[in-house]
Amino acid sequence: MTDRLRIAVLGASGYTGADLVRLALGHPQIEIAALAANAKAGQAMADIWPHLAMYPQLPRLVKADAIDFSTIDAVFGCLPHAASAELLSTINGPPSGPRIIDLSADFRLKDAATYADWYGGAHPAPGLLPEAVYGLTEFARDALPAARIVACPGCYPTAVLLALLPLVAAHAISADHITVNALSGVSGAGRSLKEANLFPEVAEAVHPYGIGRHRHMPEMEQELGARAGRDVRISFTPHLIPMNRGELVTCIVETPHGVDYLREVLADAYTDEPFVHLLPPGVAPATRQVRGSNHAVVNVFADRVPGRAIVIAAIDNLVKGSSGQAIQNFNLMFGLPETMGLEQAPLFP
Amino acid sequence: MTDRLRIAVLGASGYTGADLVRLALGHPQIEIAALAANAKAGQAMADIWPHLAMYPQLPRLVKADAIDFSTIDAVFGCLPHAASAELLSTINGPPSGPRIIDLSADFRLKDAATYADWYGGAHPAPGLLPEAVYGLTEFARDALPAARIVACPGCYPTAVLLALLPLVAAHAISADHITVNALSGVSGAGRSLKEANLFPEVAEAVHPYGIGRHRHMPEMEQELGARAGRDVRISFTPHLIPMNRGELVTCIVETPHGVDYLREVLADAYTDEPFVHLLPPGVAPATRQVRGSNHAVVNVFADRVPGRAIVIAAIDNLVKGSSGQAIQNFNLMFGLPETMGLEQAPLFP
Amino acid sequence: MTDRLRIAVLGASGYTGADLVRLALGHPQIEIAALAANAKAGQAMADIWPHLAMYPQLPRLVKADAIDFSTIDAVFGCLPHAASAELLSTINGPPSGPRIIDLSADFRLKDAATYADWYGGAHPAPGLLPEAVYGLTEFARDALPAARIVACPGCYPTAVLLALLPLVAAHAISADHITVNALSGVSGAGRSLKEANLFPEVAEAVHPYGIGRHRHMPEMEQELGARAGRDVRISFTPHLIPMNRGELVTCIVETPHGVDYLREVLADAYTDEPFVHLLPPGVAPATRQVRGSNHAVVNVFADRVPGRAIVIAAIDNLVKGSSGQAIQNFNLMFGLPETMGLEQAPLFP
Amino acid sequence: MTDRLRIAVLGASGYTGADLVRLALGHPQIEIAALAANAKAGQAMADIWPHLAMYPQLPRLVKADAIDFSTIDAVFGCLPHAASAELLSTINGPPSGPRIIDLSADFRLKDAATYADWYGGAHPAPGLLPEAVYGLTEFARDALPAARIVACPGCYPTAVLLALLPLVAAHAISADHITVNALSGVSGAGRSLKEANLFPEVAEAVHPYGIGRHRHMPEMEQELGARAGRDVRISFTPHLIPMNRGELVTCIVETPHGVDYLREVLADAYTDEPFVHLLPPGVAPATRQVRGSNHAVVNVFADRVPGRAIVIAAIDNLVKGSSGQAIQNFNLMFGLPETMGLEQAPLFP
Repeated sequence: MTDRLRIAVLGASGYTGADLVRLALGHPQIEIAALAANAKAGQAMADIWPHLAMYPQLPRLVKADAIDFSTIDAVFGCLPHAASAELLSTINGPPSGPRIIDLSADFRLKDAATYADWYGGAHPAPGLLPEAVYGLTEFARDALPAARIVACPGCYPTAVLLALLPLVAAHAISADHITVNALSGVSGAGRSLKEANLFPEVAEAVHPYGIGRHRHMPEMEQELGARAGRDVRISFTPHLIPMNRGELVTCIVETPHGVDYLREVLADAYTDEPFVHLLPPGVAPATRQVRGSNHAVVNVFADRVPGRAIVIAAIDNLVKGSSGQAIQNFNLMFGLPETMGLEQAPLFP
Repeated sequence: MTDRLRIAVLGASGYTGADLVRLALGHPQIEIAALAANAKAGQAMADIWPHLAMYPQLPRLVKADAIDFSTIDAVFGCLPHAASAELLSTINGPPSGPRIIDLSADFRLKDAATYADWYGGAHPAPGLLPEAVYGLTEFARDALPAARIVACPGCYPTAVLLALLPLVAAHAISADHITVNALSGVSGAGRSLKEANLFPEVAEAVHPYGIGRHRHMPEMEQELGARAGRDVRISFTPHLIPMNRGELVTCIVETPHGVDYLREVLADAYTDEPFVHLLPPGVAPATRQVRGSNHAVVNVFADRVPGRAIVIAAIDNLVKGSSGQAIQNFNLMFGLPETMGLEQAPLFP
Repeated sequence: MTDRLRIAVLGASGYTGADLVRLALGHPQIEIAALAANAKAGQAMADIWPHLAMYPQLPRLVKADAIDFSTIDAVFGCLPHAASAELLSTINGPPSGPRIIDLSADFRLKDAATYADWYGGAHPAPGLLPEAVYGLTEFARDALPAARIVACPGCYPTAVLLALLPLVAAHAISADHITVNALSGVSGAGRSLKEANLFPEVAEAVHPYGIGRHRHMPEMEQELGARAGRDVRISFTPHLIPMNRGELVTCIVETPHGVDYLREVLADAYTDEPFVHLLPPGVAPATRQVRGSNHAVVNVFADRVPGRAIVIAAIDNLVKGSSGQAIQNFNLMFGLPETMGLEQAPLFP
Repeated sequence: MTDRLRIAVLGASGYTGADLVRLALGHPQIEIAALAANAKAGQAMADIWPHLAMYPQLPRLVKADAIDFSTIDAVFGCLPHAASAELLSTINGPPSGPRIIDLSADFRLKDAATYADWYGGAHPAPGLLPEAVYGLTEFARDALPAARIVACPGCYPTAVLLALLPLVAAHAISADHITVNALSGVSGAGRSLKEANLFPEVAEAVHPYGIGRHRHMPEMEQELGARAGRDVRISFTPHLIPMNRGELVTCIVETPHGVDYLREVLADAYTDEPFVHLLPPGVAPATRQVRGSNHAVVNVFADRVPGRAIVIAAIDNLVKGSSGQAIQNFNLMFGLPETMGLEQAPLFP
């Protein structure tokens, strides 16, 4: 155990935190040194998480300020936005403190004003934004080894960017007309008590939400714009569907190219990727292909409307869309094999 | 009972046929005179339908050719395409025979060549196409009373046309850039045995299908084009989600107008409609609003992308998207109150 | 409208209250005169219930004490236990006030001490217990027409008693060895905010609860005991399963008789019942047979263990298990046809 | 790779076979050498299994008779009963051939006549029955290292025996009065095409099946009887519930002892077990505690009925109830650490 990297998870009482712990338990180079959840401090993980009943060895939950961060190698922030930056900005970095992998929205946007617009308040630590690395792993490998703060992308941006970033970077699709419809499982809404997430409200039903104004929009536009070298605006409509895990995005794009060319661009981007898979021609991405795993599946299809194509991606929102990608980033930050702890195959059925 | 209209249901062993029987049981002016399902002839409905166990009075299933159609007032065709037109074209109409309400695709398209392109074979009875009325009830009221053959729209076209027809007719949106993402419950796939529809394949999962080439496309384009006075092409991507009933369509449209104007157009169209409801500003349509009922809910939202709006509609695919609309058409064909037999409130949760 | 009976629903913000309103909307002799929900007073039903969006004519929610009960014919109490009796006990009965149909537990137990044991406090109005009629409709027809207060049975007792009462009354099964396993949809847990009822906690999962000590036990034992003429004790284990509606009880009983005799007893009890159906030999009761309806299905099977039989019943917990039975009782209390407003067929799929 | 044990999976086109492959992919000492599925021979696993799209390195499916078993160390039989024994009985064992781990019912029953009674035909290879080890791992550790043929228990027997075997062996409960109610996810019904397993038939619903005569009964009675030293008869009623994976059994037992004593017996049996966990007093077993993992959870509760107790167990039917236990047995047969390849934590939500 002595050689393992010691991690702390802040916000271990949420679904994201719990899935990070699930993955960390199977990671051969991680020691789970501290778990924080202020409202549940003093409880065991087994008390609040059914699937961790058989892990009594997990450290008991504490308040975040009870952690001695000088003994921690990496902090995973699984807190709500604003609360995350407030706390993380108080932690000293290396050499006397940990590196930070934040799963909240707080370090994703480069521009504090945009953050204030979308998240309803001034950024708690704008001075840290310049050094934060946007951790869509496949496109951040150069920056991760030296990063002190990594902002893991939101779940929707992860799927959308995996579908579109290579195409935008290659100028293979128009940056003017991108329409994304997105579908998410209910775990994406978190474990907090909201009537809208009760089983009878959601089961046997579907509805859109955040229509025309979802908070993941500026993040997608920032990253697509950076690759396109110009402003990008997308229409984005997420829907909540009756499943626990999984996210699927359907992107209608305008392009002068045929599908074969778009496939080539995506194949160039992903052929050697361990977690991103371009499916064979005609095979539709499906969330059941990736459930419980860090894998993403992508494919591109011709549309009947001339000049259009359809790019589709599917991920597990809690894994590649959140905790799995956080571990993937952690591996690269600390010089470990990228797939370490993330090798489990998807769970189907 | 003597004054009731006598109906026959062809294809009573499918979900559509069964839901028609469910509704007909509660219709005060319908006598269910004959139920046909060739492969199940001789069985009782209670033998093949769990929810009809308490209706032993229902006629036993027969082969279609055993029905004396001269005693029938209305035939509901719930058969697969091609089979439907083949059979229905052999039935004499009034005065010696019944009027026809077909729920298959066979009489929806005006152009037999388009039918052949999309449905993989020559139309079995092209001579009947000119007289068939496209039965999207709210837009067919003038033609229904005299119609001999009514083609009930597909489930997706019902939802999409309710969302877009008034806007296209008012030239309030561009006919050039319409993108529709659609979500359907699994009952839309029918009761036939396909591995893809087994519970473990579908539950806790989502996937798109028929990407860029779903058979409901030409029907939507035909009807939108007729109102627009020009060709219309739409991008349409349906997805299968883990619920039994329900359908939701999200339409991204281009428009020079603001949302307030689009609301006005929809309000003008639907204010007095018994089954189509424009929701208050900001309220998202949801399938749980209409489950089990003939109601449709519609709303329009601003998009962040300038010049775009989002129009969303939800229906129960088996009711307003199929059997309920068939009853609604039947009512108007026979001079009955439009809502007769369709008054039950949605089922939630 | 002047001839209709005016009803008030107390607790219209819960699933039970909402389902009562759904059924009342389709009842030709009911006028929904008042809807109360203290915490939501001032809101429209359409604001809090997705499926009532198309019923703007429903009265706005008020506080219970704002209702002039002298103008009301019948009050439906859909409040939590204790709160229900506290409020209902303050309402004058006929001739100056309404008759009461209570869906809470407060008037089900004849013995105030038993109530105190199981519900954690003294009964708020023990003086009313003697006159309350236990409204398992099929076994209460004599008492209902004159009743001022009717206590609708709990959902589990409804299913268990329909399965077992005739057998116990005929002394066809042992009163000593009754084991009941019960399965319920999540709507039975109500609309209140509990982490345990969030979609991701319940979906794709099952667990038992209230093991060996569920509050519906004394009610079942009271009613079975009254018919048996002696004390009855049952083992009862309920489980929560991932569906919205439905309840199924599997009762293992000891009997010196064969299954044929037990069938005869049940057939004698239920042959002419409009809502309780003994299925053909070998057909398993299933919740999909009764979804959304007031029907119950029952059957009895031989066990391999000599001297045992298995009696199974299924209902919709919100209809026959709650609001539907309340309407059924209302009909008999006011001399209306028993099935009025409850004729709709089950919804499948 | 040269040191790995080479396995063949027969019946890799079923859910059990696929889950075995999922687990084998993560097992450091397994080389998947051959995959057989006669009806799918020639296809890639990625063609028939959505979640294996990212494993092109898996061997292509072949017919079973195309496998050179002399190069295989272990064969996993995931075929239907009868077909399994027919094929497996033709394979030479060590030293020239593989050891056999069968997941079908064919080698579970010691008595060929009982097999014929329950499985509808003479046993295909009765001569092999005496040497087959019943592989409920926790109770078979002595026999596994030398076994040539291991019969993995059925899913229901795994859960029931884990709950009851220690209690029966200690004579802590009566062998005369055992009542088991069982709940299973739909994957237990396999991937074959049956109307009853279509999504709309099963979702939002529950029903019992195999009432009083399920094929897993004799297997449970055989093993309980062997420990009790006498005949045991149990009442067993399984139900199908709308989830993919998971199994929960609720056993009502008669006992002269208090719950504390029963806990002691179970604690003695399971304290050091890696996969079987006695939960803290009062905590209800739930399938969400074990989803996707080889873990089982067990607990015992007092019943209100004097002289009775309730013992409950939950497993994932495809893992501990099938493929996971098969791997666990494989590990012990080949001298590997028992938990190898089975360390992943449960997946929740």
